[in-house]
Amino acid sequence: MPMNYQKILDEIYDEIQPELQHGKVADYIPALAEIEKGQFAMTVTLEDGAVYSVGDSTKKFSIQSISKVFTFTLALEIYSKELYKRVGVEPSGNAFNSLVQLEYEHGIPRNPFINAGAIIITDTLITHYKDPDKTLKVLLYFMRKISGNPKLSIDKEVANSEMEYGDRNLALARLMRSFGNFENEVQSTVMTYFNHCAITMSTEELSRAMLFLAFGGIDPVSKKIFISSSKAKRINAMMLTCGHYDASGEFAFHVGLPAKSGVGGGIVATVPGEMSIAVWSPALNKYGNSHAGTLALEMFTTKTGLSIF
Amino acid sequence: MPMNYQKILDEIYDEIQPELQHGKVADYIPALAEIEKGQFAMTVTLEDGAVYSVGDSTKKFSIQSISKVFTFTLALEIYSKELYKRVGVEPSGNAFNSLVQLEYEHGIPRNPFINAGAIIITDTLITHYKDPDKTLKVLLYFMRKISGNPKLSIDKEVANSEMEYGDRNLALARLMRSFGNFENEVQSTVMTYFNHCAITMSTEELSRAMLFLAFGGIDPVSKKIFISSSKAKRINAMMLTCGHYDASGEFAFHVGLPAKSGVGGGIVATVPGEMSIAVWSPALNKYGNSHAGTLALEMFTTKTGLSIF
Amino acid sequence: MPMNYQKILDEIYDEIQPELQHGKVADYIPALAEIEKGQFAMTVTLEDGAVYSVGDSTKKFSIQSISKVFTFTLALEIYSKELYKRVGVEPSGNAFNSLVQLEYEHGIPRNPFINAGAIIITDTLITHYKDPDKTLKVLLYFMRKISGNPKLSIDKEVANSEMEYGDRNLALARLMRSFGNFENEVQSTVMTYFNHCAITMSTEELSRAMLFLAFGGIDPVSKKIFISSSKAKRINAMMLTCGHYDASGEFAFHVGLPAKSGVGGGIVATVPGEMSIAVWSPALNKYGNSHAGTLALEMFTTKTGLSIF
Amino acid sequence: MPMNYQKILDEIYDEIQPELQHGKVADYIPALAEIEKGQFAMTVTLEDGAVYSVGDSTKKFSIQSISKVFTFTLALEIYSKELYKRVGVEPSGNAFNSLVQLEYEHGIPRNPFINAGAIIITDTLITHYKDPDKTLKVLLYFMRKISGNPKLSIDKEVANSEMEYGDRNLALARLMRSFGNFENEVQSTVMTYFNHCAITMSTEELSRAMLFLAFGGIDPVSKKIFISSSKAKRINAMMLTCGHYDASGEFAFHVGLPAKSGVGGGIVATVPGEMSIAVWSPALNKYGNSHAGTLALEMFTTKTGLSIF
Repeated sequence: MPMNYQKILDEIYDEIQPELQHGKVADYIPALAEIEKGQFAMTVTLEDGAVYSVGDSTKKFSIQSISKVFTFTLALEIYSKELYKRVGVEPSGNAFNSLVQLEYEHGIPRNPFINAGAIIITDTLITHYKDPDKTLKVLLYFMRKISGNPKLSIDKEVANSEMEYGDRNLALARLMRSFGNFENEVQSTVMTYFNHCAITMSTEELSRAMLFLAFGGIDPVSKKIFISSSKAKRINAMMLTCGHYDASGEFAFHVGLPAKSGVGGGIVATVPGEMSIAVWSPALNKYGNSHAGTLALEMFTTKTGLSIF
Repeated sequence: MPMNYQKILDEIYDEIQPELQHGKVADYIPALAEIEKGQFAMTVTLEDGAVYSVGDSTKKFSIQSISKVFTFTLALEIYSKELYKRVGVEPSGNAFNSLVQLEYEHGIPRNPFINAGAIIITDTLITHYKDPDKTLKVLLYFMRKISGNPKLSIDKEVANSEMEYGDRNLALARLMRSFGNFENEVQSTVMTYFNHCAITMSTEELSRAMLFLAFGGIDPVSKKIFISSSKAKRINAMMLTCGHYDASGEFAFHVGLPAKSGVGGGIVATVPGEMSIAVWSPALNKYGNSHAGTLALEMFTTKTGLSIF
Repeated sequence: MPMNYQKILDEIYDEIQPELQHGKVADYIPALAEIEKGQFAMTVTLEDGAVYSVGDSTKKFSIQSISKVFTFTLALEIYSKELYKRVGVEPSGNAFNSLVQLEYEHGIPRNPFINAGAIIITDTLITHYKDPDKTLKVLLYFMRKISGNPKLSIDKEVANSEMEYGDRNLALARLMRSFGNFENEVQSTVMTYFNHCAITMSTEELSRAMLFLAFGGIDPVSKKIFISSSKAKRINAMMLTCGHYDASGEFAFHVGLPAKSGVGGGIVATVPGEMSIAVWSPALNKYGNSHAGTLALEMFTTKTGLSIF
Repeated sequence: MPMNYQKILDEIYDEIQPELQHGKVADYIPALAEIEKGQFAMTVTLEDGAVYSVGDSTKKFSIQSISKVFTFTLALEIYSKELYKRVGVEPSGNAFNSLVQLEYEHGIPRNPFINAGAIIITDTLITHYKDPDKTLKVLLYFMRKISGNPKLSIDKEVANSEMEYGDRNLALARLMRSFGNFENEVQSTVMTYFNHCAITMSTEELSRAMLFLAFGGIDPVSKKIFISSSKAKRINAMMLTCGHYDASGEFAFHVGLPAKSGVGGGIVATVPGEMSIAVWSPALNKYGNSHAGTLALEMFTTKTGLSIF
């Protein structure tokens, strides 16, 4: 008997209400600090494209670090294993923006989901597409294709605000460049990184955009092949081991799904072979992951038994 | 149609032959350095207790860090969440025996699968069982029960050899004690740790011993409940994110199963809801994991499609 | 009986010849890499302004980190103890351009003689003089006064070359800015820093310029007070404990004088109450200090007994 | 006109009174925690053996880290430059008992005045004298000779208390042993270290004991040569750059003399070619150096102008 996903989401919606005021909205830039707490949305997309949602599932929010999944996908498609000369695949065991490990490991970031790693990924894309603007265009084109939304756009106010407070990310980029692990101009590369972090999407769009990663790289609705199954496996494994800053182990246990969070309050997850899920609630726990979003996903795997463990 | 596991193992056995001379046997203690390269064994145990093996699957080897799975299981059963006051659940992003992070994080090891964490787990067991000898007896009793072998024993030569070269582990223990995170006498606690690392088992025994972790904490053959399903999920998640020293991310991608390796050349893995697997080949890759063992597991998930991703 | 300094310098000149080919000229930027090995000059300036020299003592070279003494002097005169809110006074125990300690200590550099500290000093000067160009002008004016040379100038080729390869220093600046320890625009501040490092001087000029620091802040020839005796003492103490990157302890023993070296091959030293000394030889030892320059100073204190210990 | 040292000490005694209640007595072991605040003594010993004192200058206190000067002297006399294969000569830029740098630098401590370095020095002495007890006897014999007190002894209660809380020092020793930089049994070597730290002396005895270091290694009274002038210079340079934990730079500026402090509240200093000084006041500043002792030495060099800078 198939599960009644709408009923499950409705239950979660009720049960999550008391949690929506807990945690703290990201406040390191003004453009994010003004988002109101208490908001929540969740969407599940199945193999056949069927969509189940609760909350304000068409409300756009800043995807932030979730964009790292999509840039990594593009770069892995272009470079394959060559990519690992410039970025590792192991958990970092450190704050997401620490310079210590980066210096100790000679400018090679531990993985594509910490800031330094994502900036390197952006650098490899600019090298390939030869230009920051073209790179952003290709990325938007790709994300429009996988999400089925031809109008995805970048919140320029957020991107500019990031740049204004972007010293640590610029420090990471400069440090990597000093080790010879940087190919393009620093300021515009980091600005490109901030731009793709500032893409806004709804849970419906994000959930749809992740579907191909739940199905071995092939969109099960359109049958389009976006990436090989081996690469899709790599991306899922990376999300499980490195997807949640320094709370990835905790998340793997509580939720038990490959997933990636962003400080905008979004989290996307895959149930390999089954579905993709997106959740959004802007208040963050102490690790920088959506407080209610994490709990909602835990409720979901508890109710459905869909953990990979 | 059920898979022909014997055929798959036979294929792996043939394909793995050219790899058996690659890598390097652990040589940090004489007792391990004398093991001959080129050996290989692999065993799969299914839900109904059916066993498929290739190679010398009754040959005993030193389980080393694989024992950390079993001591963690015991300690988690005793202490539940209280345990996490003394040891974390996140990947370390460092060498398995580094002191840097331990000092920075005030004597709380990152997880139970790095040496410092496993020593803390041993310390909590000694506190509970009130005595190092009794602790070892209880552990052996537990492992005899889950493996179905009433004769499991400790290779005392290996344990003593470890102690002779045990300065770094003693340093870890002393450092944790200096932070107040140690409850028992240092030398005998570390000796207890070395003793459980020196238990010898065959792939048949190890595979059987892991079966309950593949089935939510319940041995599917005897129906005995060894640990709650939530705790079994925790242990599997921990194996996936932290099971292979500083190559856990690589392993998660290539093999895609919760697993734990030891420098004796053994690796155990679970396919949740399906089976447990043990493999052994003593030569190690540069990360300290069995070279051929890792490859054999990758062949297995490739041939069977049984990766969790 | 007064010492015959010319004779001592002549002896050193003879004895140092076999050492002039040892070591390696700084090659991290092309503009420095082309300097020829084998060059040597040394000048002693006494209380009455008497000057003794050997070698090509009017040949200009890039003073590099020696400029940190002069910028620190200016900033200490302006800010007094307030300065220590932004930079410490302790040896670093690390490479001169490491980011690790800087991150651990929240963007406050250990002392004004490591790169991060000297960049902060430059930042404080720009804040005070309100403009990078004006800051450079004031600094040049000050150095012309203390050196008695109205024509000191900056080697713009060296400064531009530094900027081209300046990623690590830019990373240090960005990291400090991310901690709130930066007041001016990053690029122009670091460029100002590179400019004052690129001032060129001869040993005669440098020796003369340091004389006030050997005499409690007062130029003994002109009787001009450049800085209080307490501040002069601070600068001398800092040179002794932090003047030679990660070989300051070694230098304190072998030479036994407050001194500061630069990668251009220059070293300046004071004999408090007695004289100032400058030496130049471009090939560096493994710590980045002039190989022959260090030895020449050791010969000098051995021959004269003028060590402070 | 010779200075009236008694008058100067009397002035210091008066001026220091308001400071004697500031700071905090070392409380990491019970045996030290019970010492009463508010005590003060200071002694100056001149070239001719003349002694000037204020306060309770015959009251014994635990010399603690000051003993590192004497063990380093003995070891340097035995091993000369060979010693630097096992311990460095540079400031550490870290807490006196940190393990981070020690691990990063492969078990070679930065200098003989941090705990790890002093333990290595003790280890080299035990290797030379072939036995911990004999080593302690030789050390006491040496210290009785240089201090002129045939009855110096060890406070065994303090030594045992140190051992009871000695985990961090044992961790340092084990870590160095794991890198191959340890030659004797760990527990008894560290116990020997704690024993020499627990020697008790008065300021009169300590001041007398340091006199040879103020005069190039030769006791100016008895004319006995204890160490070569080059080695005496090395020890003085080391005291200046590394003598005060992570406040050595601050001390070099404020006091301007080679000196070594201990957590028992003692500080010894040399004025090369002039005199030796000992001061004691048990309450410590935040860096672990005697609060009033540091101030009293600063008053002394201000009043006498005897700073080396």
